[in-house]
Amino acid sequence: MAPPSKLKTTAQINNMGYEEFIDVFGNVIEHCSLCAAAVWRYRPFKDVKYLHEEICKFVDQLPPAGGEGILRSHPDLAGRAAKEGLLTKESSQEQRAAGLSDLTQEERKELAQMNDMYRSKFGFPFVICARKNKKDAILEGLRTRLNNSQEAELQKGLTEVKKICYLRLLDLVEHDGIESRL
Amino acid sequence: MAPPSKLKTTAQINNMGYEEFIDVFGNVIEHCSLCAAAVWRYRPFKDVKYLHEEICKFVDQLPPAGGEGILRSHPDLAGRAAKEGLLTKESSQEQRAAGLSDLTQEERKELAQMNDMYRSKFGFPFVICARKNKKDAILEGLRTRLNNSQEAELQKGLTEVKKICYLRLLDLVEHDGIESRL
Repeated sequence: MAPPSKLKTTAQINNMGYEEFIDVFGNVIEHCSLCAAAVWRYRPFKDVKYLHEEICKFVDQLPPAGGEGILRSHPDLAGRAAKEGLLTKESSQEQRAAGLSDLTQEERKELAQMNDMYRSKFGFPFVICARKNKKDAILEGLRTRLNNSQEAELQKGLTEVKKICYLRLLDLVEHDGIESRL
Repeated sequence: MAPPSKLKTTAQINNMGYEEFIDVFGNVIEHCSLCAAAVWRYRPFKDVKYLHEEICKFVDQLPPAGGEGILRSHPDLAGRAAKEGLLTKESSQEQRAAGLSDLTQEERKELAQMNDMYRSKFGFPFVICARKNKKDAILEGLRTRLNNSQEAELQKGLTEVKKICYLRLLDLVEHDGIESRL
């Protein structure tokens, strides 16, 4: 979603100092700049896919509490933060792209209720890659996923986090010839 | 350093919603709110020591890249962020308490040079609990620790992070009868 002129090349990424790297990539995992801080040791990156893979590997190596912490760092879809304008710019764009800013009052109410049920069952919010799903698919996904086990939802949520991360990376980095489909 | 009237009781902590918990404890590990997000699952906390222990356990469970990421999330002592007023309020108070705002020009230069050497040798900045050390001890510690191995410094740095975290927690939470010495 960033204008093309601002896309970084791989060479530019590999020449960044640590602070610039965090400024640019600190929020590819929502509110968890520790993930970008951790993978900085793996420079130089061959391409954006390699950078994404290192972030995914780091997420997978976290103890379960860390995975839950990542999910908890995400806002509810069409939740309080969205209503009060407190979303990160990335989340705000993603939720709008999924049509979550145009919910009917009824849809909004159903989503809020299911979000609350999900959070109280699992101890973390429902996370889905909003740019890969429109509002109907999101509502349907939430209905279905409410039936899963905590363990399954931790994994499912983190899989969605990795998709979100990939799309955020593609918004920041030149990726000629790299498949944007996951 | 917070005024006593603002200290939270253990009961208040255990009654916090997730967002308030992160507002209050998100920076007890500098710039790594994921640590507080991770330990939220361990409520109720018996006391502040227990909360600290859970954070330490989480830090210890991270893969080495995660430990390095935590260290990298810390600013240089008397470095660029301090000069430009970009420190978190916690770091700013801590560095001032250690006398790092009153360095002579020569001390400042020596510290900057050693910080650079340290960072280029180890891949993360020199971290020390500034409130437990005055400027002379900090300069001496940096001189000595430059000779250590990367592995030893990763552990040493994280030990200091845990001390910083403990003192930040004691600034936030009532702790009658709890030893403030680590």
